[in-house]
Amino acid sequence: MRQELPIDRGGERSSDAVAERIARAGSGRLATGLIAVVGHVHQLIRELRPTRAEWREVMAYLAAVGDATTDNRQEWVLLADLIGATALVEDINSRRPPGATPNAPRGPFYRADAPRRANGANICLDGVGEPLAVQGRVVDLDGHPIAGAIVETWQANGQGFFENQQPDEQPDCNLRGIFTTDPNGSFNYVTIKPASYAVPTDGPAGKLLGRLGCPLRRPANIHFIISADGFEQITTQLFDRAEAAATEDALHCVKPTLLADFERTKRKDVPWRLSFSFVMARAPRTRNMI
Amino acid sequence: MRQELPIDRGGERSSDAVAERIARAGSGRLATGLIAVVGHVHQLIRELRPTRAEWREVMAYLAAVGDATTDNRQEWVLLADLIGATALVEDINSRRPPGATPNAPRGPFYRADAPRRANGANICLDGVGEPLAVQGRVVDLDGHPIAGAIVETWQANGQGFFENQQPDEQPDCNLRGIFTTDPNGSFNYVTIKPASYAVPTDGPAGKLLGRLGCPLRRPANIHFIISADGFEQITTQLFDRAEAAATEDALHCVKPTLLADFERTKRKDVPWRLSFSFVMARAPRTRNMI
Repeated sequence: MRQELPIDRGGERSSDAVAERIARAGSGRLATGLIAVVGHVHQLIRELRPTRAEWREVMAYLAAVGDATTDNRQEWVLLADLIGATALVEDINSRRPPGATPNAPRGPFYRADAPRRANGANICLDGVGEPLAVQGRVVDLDGHPIAGAIVETWQANGQGFFENQQPDEQPDCNLRGIFTTDPNGSFNYVTIKPASYAVPTDGPAGKLLGRLGCPLRRPANIHFIISADGFEQITTQLFDRAEAAATEDALHCVKPTLLADFERTKRKDVPWRLSFSFVMARAPRTRNMI
Repeated sequence: MRQELPIDRGGERSSDAVAERIARAGSGRLATGLIAVVGHVHQLIRELRPTRAEWREVMAYLAAVGDATTDNRQEWVLLADLIGATALVEDINSRRPPGATPNAPRGPFYRADAPRRANGANICLDGVGEPLAVQGRVVDLDGHPIAGAIVETWQANGQGFFENQQPDEQPDCNLRGIFTTDPNGSFNYVTIKPASYAVPTDGPAGKLLGRLGCPLRRPANIHFIISADGFEQITTQLFDRAEAAATEDALHCVKPTLLADFERTKRKDVPWRLSFSFVMARAPRTRNMI
């Protein structure tokens, strides 16, 4: 009797055979990564035992995600977002000591060329929406103010659209700005209360999760990037606590420490306010905590 | 202190949170499948700990595989072939008792409309290549002949191309035919000795495995589909034993029991011969053996 190849043994060791071939051929990060991918793909197949027809559906689905991906739309990123993979990668790359403000994915709507603004400025350039006063602080883990920290912010408007999604409808750089903290570590500006919004549901990623009844909306949020010499940069999103309770984030980015309260004021001209303290951890940023 | 969401705990339980959401929303095969996929994707991320830059490369690679997929080319299937996933799915769906001829993937070049031929016919329609006499038998697990079995065969030519890859260069249905076994379970025909061939290496799938130095050729093979009333259909490939020893199959389909000897004859007009017995297991074909 001839010796059986591993792939012949009911598939239990099929991934070993493939891994062995890759390991024999290559080494380094790419080989390690592909061997891990192969192991998990084979394990998935052994767990799920797809029929040939189901496997063809899987292949067709992968092709459909590719078809939906264009220069202006990366359906793979959306799919990774919707299954929490993007949020997990961000988590792994930004573990911080307890008490520090955590990261959240930067998302696709960031612009590095937003205008610098003085504290107190109004970044709503079209006057549309319910005005919101943001009062922020940037402190270290001991609660000491960090002066001169750079605070970049961007957000969707009251209809849930970022200005670079609507270049013909919103003014350039609407609802974006770069601020600097004062000697007390404070910054403040006026914007409008953002709205919750739906993720794209016209492609295979949104359709798949939608077919399963998963949430496809994001609670209202405001993006921030906070930078200060000697501290780990924070890239994050603040979420409306009231809305986050009702609207599960389709992209799995909400964390308890990123919930903020949008509070009513008595002022007619600025009916909303939001206060939040960002807590920075000291660099090095290559800390490995998991 | 607020209760932390699972995704906040260093990512160890991130897939539980996603799975919980899917399970709450859906049930059935699709939900089970997606939960398994999510679990493995999150586990992969925790194992490999990709940097953000590496993750962007992963997203870009997925997009590139999609870009290479057209109506005439399914790069995802090629990638699945190259990492042994297609072979594993075929294995899982065709487990048979010991002694029965195993399946191998059907591949993309099958045609259901090949011509029926009488035993002894020559299926090489252009006279190009080294003639090969195929002498086959179809038997059951006890070695008893199966008369009236239908034997479909197709193969590449001496340059490694199937006729439907070269519609302008090879005659229609060159090197294809459908035979019927005689009362002894035998069939025979004349063809040409097939050549080994390279898988496509101009797309992201071949490039990735090639970059790792993995084999990207297939040893010469002949495809068969064998059907007989009351028996499980066999869809398989026979490989040139001499060549398979030297050329690792890029698609992981070679099994010891699918190796066949291409032997030299003394005849100048037909210098090669190949004998092989296909062993069929009785239906039902939905046996579950792993």
